[in-house]
Amino acid sequence: MTPTISMYGASIPAFVRALRNLRHVLERGQAHAIERGFDPAVLLQSRLAPDMRPLLNQVQMASDTAKNGAARLAGVEAPVFADDETDFAGLYARLDRAIAYLGTFAPAQIDGSETRPVVLRTPGGEHAFEGLDYLTGFALPNLYFHFATAYAILRHNGVPLGKLDYLGRS
Amino acid sequence: MTPTISMYGASIPAFVRALRNLRHVLERGQAHAIERGFDPAVLLQSRLAPDMRPLLNQVQMASDTAKNGAARLAGVEAPVFADDETDFAGLYARLDRAIAYLGTFAPAQIDGSETRPVVLRTPGGEHAFEGLDYLTGFALPNLYFHFATAYAILRHNGVPLGKLDYLGRS
Repeated sequence: MTPTISMYGASIPAFVRALRNLRHVLERGQAHAIERGFDPAVLLQSRLAPDMRPLLNQVQMASDTAKNGAARLAGVEAPVFADDETDFAGLYARLDRAIAYLGTFAPAQIDGSETRPVVLRTPGGEHAFEGLDYLTGFALPNLYFHFATAYAILRHNGVPLGKLDYLGRS
Repeated sequence: MTPTISMYGASIPAFVRALRNLRHVLERGQAHAIERGFDPAVLLQSRLAPDMRPLLNQVQMASDTAKNGAARLAGVEAPVFADDETDFAGLYARLDRAIAYLGTFAPAQIDGSETRPVVLRTPGGEHAFEGLDYLTGFALPNLYFHFATAYAILRHNGVPLGKLDYLGRS
């Protein structure tokens, strides 16, 4: 395999794009609630199964996956975001803060991280990765998992959205 | 940005892994239906919103995104898979066929494709990408979109699944 792309190029722009598109999708959900005359907060507590997390948590987890993903690849400590949002405005602020944090990384901090050891601590135990496997086997699929789940919760509740709202139009 | 990873390494292993994990998640769905005594085909026609595609189509679209993604990056014509599956066995065969097709690509066919022009024809019009943007801005997010939606449909219908079923345990 011939190296022709950078770890930075394979990660940070995709993280930023996903969080921006997620913000857009949330805005559509909030606007729909206002238009239909119901409390937008109802959407934030909606879930697809009783033992799945509601929309509010899906957004927090998408933001954390991108924020922590960048930090782990760079080998730095990520700031902890308090999970204290209660409304759409709070989630927009969280996403904006995560996007701004992603913007602080210079390519040189991420490039070359493909073999950097990354240890992920989860309730199910510790998972050890090298950087590239962490990116392709955890950070990207997990980010899109929470984004797609957020999208699905909104669609299930009647918010008019299409694939281009998820993928981004630009 | 310093090139240290390959287009092949950023794409094909992730495509294969996602399709294998999707197959596993489907197997769990089928087993759940059998155990609970309902027709597994009911799951294949389940959807999260009236204007979203049911599980059967989500699997077809995930498989096509990976298959066509590899072909477009390599600049070759992908085989067309007839959308004629009607049961779980048919979907397993489709996923196996897509995984086998992904296995036919040599790294040299994909590497260097980061600037290769890729034109995507959709009902909404044509989208022109360069290879890396196509991978990170369409192929990967779209693949995970359909996989996560398939997972969500199964979870919404009571199939016992966890995040590790989606991410893969190995």
